[in-house]
Amino acid sequence: MAKPKKTPRPKAVTPKGFRDYFGAEVTHRNEMLAKIAEVYHRYGFDPLETSGVETVEALGKFLPDVDRPNEGVFAWEEDSDWLALRYDLTAPLARVAAQYRDTLPSPYRRYAMGPVWRNEKPGPGRFRQFYQCDADTVGAPSVAADAEICAMLSDTLEAVGIPRGDYVIRVNNRKVLDGVLETLGLTDDEDAKKEAVLRTIDKFDKVSIEEFWALLTTGRLDASGAFIKGVGLTQDQAQNIGQYMQSRCETAQETLGLLSQMIGNSDSGASGLKELREMAELLAAQGYGPDRIVIDPSVVRGLGYYTGPVFEAELTFEVTDEKGRPRNFGSVAGGGRYDDLVKRFTGQEVPATGVSIGVDRLLAALHAKGRLDTKARGPVIVTVMDKARMADYQTMVAELRQADIRAEVYLGNPKNFGNQLKYADKRESPIAVIAGGDEFDRDVVQIKDLILGAEIAKDATAEEWKDRPQQVEVPRAEMLARIRQMLDDQS
Amino acid sequence: MAKPKKTPRPKAVTPKGFRDYFGAEVTHRNEMLAKIAEVYHRYGFDPLETSGVETVEALGKFLPDVDRPNEGVFAWEEDSDWLALRYDLTAPLARVAAQYRDTLPSPYRRYAMGPVWRNEKPGPGRFRQFYQCDADTVGAPSVAADAEICAMLSDTLEAVGIPRGDYVIRVNNRKVLDGVLETLGLTDDEDAKKEAVLRTIDKFDKVSIEEFWALLTTGRLDASGAFIKGVGLTQDQAQNIGQYMQSRCETAQETLGLLSQMIGNSDSGASGLKELREMAELLAAQGYGPDRIVIDPSVVRGLGYYTGPVFEAELTFEVTDEKGRPRNFGSVAGGGRYDDLVKRFTGQEVPATGVSIGVDRLLAALHAKGRLDTKARGPVIVTVMDKARMADYQTMVAELRQADIRAEVYLGNPKNFGNQLKYADKRESPIAVIAGGDEFDRDVVQIKDLILGAEIAKDATAEEWKDRPQQVEVPRAEMLARIRQMLDDQS
Repeated sequence: MAKPKKTPRPKAVTPKGFRDYFGAEVTHRNEMLAKIAEVYHRYGFDPLETSGVETVEALGKFLPDVDRPNEGVFAWEEDSDWLALRYDLTAPLARVAAQYRDTLPSPYRRYAMGPVWRNEKPGPGRFRQFYQCDADTVGAPSVAADAEICAMLSDTLEAVGIPRGDYVIRVNNRKVLDGVLETLGLTDDEDAKKEAVLRTIDKFDKVSIEEFWALLTTGRLDASGAFIKGVGLTQDQAQNIGQYMQSRCETAQETLGLLSQMIGNSDSGASGLKELREMAELLAAQGYGPDRIVIDPSVVRGLGYYTGPVFEAELTFEVTDEKGRPRNFGSVAGGGRYDDLVKRFTGQEVPATGVSIGVDRLLAALHAKGRLDTKARGPVIVTVMDKARMADYQTMVAELRQADIRAEVYLGNPKNFGNQLKYADKRESPIAVIAGGDEFDRDVVQIKDLILGAEIAKDATAEEWKDRPQQVEVPRAEMLARIRQMLDDQS
Repeated sequence: MAKPKKTPRPKAVTPKGFRDYFGAEVTHRNEMLAKIAEVYHRYGFDPLETSGVETVEALGKFLPDVDRPNEGVFAWEEDSDWLALRYDLTAPLARVAAQYRDTLPSPYRRYAMGPVWRNEKPGPGRFRQFYQCDADTVGAPSVAADAEICAMLSDTLEAVGIPRGDYVIRVNNRKVLDGVLETLGLTDDEDAKKEAVLRTIDKFDKVSIEEFWALLTTGRLDASGAFIKGVGLTQDQAQNIGQYMQSRCETAQETLGLLSQMIGNSDSGASGLKELREMAELLAAQGYGPDRIVIDPSVVRGLGYYTGPVFEAELTFEVTDEKGRPRNFGSVAGGGRYDDLVKRFTGQEVPATGVSIGVDRLLAALHAKGRLDTKARGPVIVTVMDKARMADYQTMVAELRQADIRAEVYLGNPKNFGNQLKYADKRESPIAVIAGGDEFDRDVVQIKDLILGAEIAKDATAEEWKDRPQQVEVPRAEMLARIRQMLDDQS
């Protein structure tokens, strides 16, 4: 190899907005994804793994938030093409559905799990690479497909450890909202105004009803004293929209009744309402009652590509926010029907619906609920008292590993024994094995209970521990049995 | 959303050199990786997941093949930095080891699994994104760490389904080779010539011994008649190198004895030989004999960053190549000691050693050995005879899923019943459930055994199948029990 030139040392840092995941962070996520995959599989979904790189052309400009420019992706030029990292798992699915349309089963139910990349300004807790976990049905026009995905989402949340009652899946239909706006005189001809209304609706949860009205009409001063321009609706229009946003009733029947008044004669509204009613009936028939899935007209799901049913899974238990205030945990998954994505490629309309789970949010929720086993057990550490005895130490760990016990020899510089115990501590080792010349001569080993040691260290009166000694000497031949028993005692 | 402008339709294709993985391709890989992770975990290794994107500065120019220019990565500019997709899992580990050196345990044992990207010319079976699966120990100077990784690799291969006898792990030490070359008068002063020798050595397996000598001396004509320039060694030097490459003997003792003659007075050679001997002793003590791990001086492992022990796992069973000729399956994993990678960042030498498993090669090997369950079972399909009964059909699948049976309702256009059965066939469904108005009136369902159906279709004389009817009618209440029994009969 040519000798590298003298250059300044590279900085050992992740690029801005990227991070590393260590130990349990990785295994917890993998375990959660495996549980999700199990439910998806049971529902007949097949895995699909596309690569991280797509042509910019195939990805299109379908970032979920329409405000974001194309620069929202990481892209580079190759020959005359532009390639980019995928920003979600839906755009690659649309490409796959078009590319393999002659060979894939139709409908095509698929799930996908993996990282996606967004070229955005990173912020606290906001990264430029993160996991998504999606399930979609392509080629199923009926809302039975949407209902199925909602039911599956409910089963999934329970499978990963969110108990019933701690979540609710809220279902709406974009066409109902279109109908309501149409009845208020806002049609597709007034695109700009309608978009402004939708953007304001998206903020509904974050402001009071009076502030909401103000935003829809003449504007208001925000907390900093800055004036936020209003959308310019009449008071009447604004109040109607406010009423719509609060039209969720005790039962689906009541909600649907209220909505049917609000949509007036709108065809779009009538079609959306019919779909919503069908979904409610299908879900009720399968036993997914309002304790799990509810009709909620305030669900809008961004401003993107959804064309019919939309849904969102919200966790309803309280957590404490960074300022110590209690708040609902909020949304962990969402999705809906998007009938136009595959059409981009083929010209033919292909109905599709799906859900995306926010993997990191859901993991955070499981953390908040104490559902993740945080006491990962480290390996048994065989310490090194005599470097020349390495083969003997290795034989000990080989014996432990063959018995399915996680174990390792200390492989750092063995000179300072204290460092070996510090290492064992850092690894959260349950047990250390100690054997030097004297032990080898007498064919015994010392076994040190590090969990007990830590407890005794915390507790002043060691008296109560005297029946369970912190360190025992056993014949070498009994090492495995004794360690096994000690591990059992600890758990 | 603003209406998209009329543009030509995008092409639904993966970028050149990228591919999609469907169904069992995904699950087989995940299952294999899970088994590998289990072994790594038992050996005390902790998972680490870094992001796909690194700074070009942190990645450095450490592509395993030194011939490759920096263009071997996918890179793009961001502000004044260059970012790139990782090309392996070792460079990110070196960055992590430097970045977190104050908090990580030392030695740090970590494993990593995930995609890496290479910006190279794609070829048949050669992709620009592929999986790697690595385990490394950082901060352990002793060859006990290298020996441990060889033992772990052996356990791993057996855990994923490569039986003992079908693989061998070959171990060498780069310093021994250096010593041999030094003794022949090739020192570090003659960098260019030494590199040419190493490159030729790498081709040893692909040519005859006479061709090998010719390449090391005056050159030779290749099959196409083109002249390949020789390295310019003397006949004597070339024969000595040829002898070195064939110096593997029956036992490690014999091989080590032969090597000790070849390295003459070289310090580097002596140091390498000592390490090799230590590894052989450690492995023998743990029971890893020559049926699993052998000393083989012909292992060179590319020309990259290795500084001491190098090793390679070779599968020894025969497969048929694309031209129908039998050949050994070949290498599926390799690694070695690289003591300089972390130093790039910190200036301090940090000893490190590790192994990388070629995930796709190993999967291909399991395929070749028939170790992968290719008969993935599709879902039970509940067909739709009457669209208005969708809630009833959904209730049926809900019942099956709750009993942990993979099931789905047909969600395509139900008009053509033949299409539904074709769909079931494509999904490799074991069973179809059929219920129309008549069945609902009588509170029964038809259950069709599709596996049996396919067998009968293949076989002319249906006589022998008469005891096991292809389709049965059962009361609705007995549907679940009957399907469960049918699935048991099929398996």
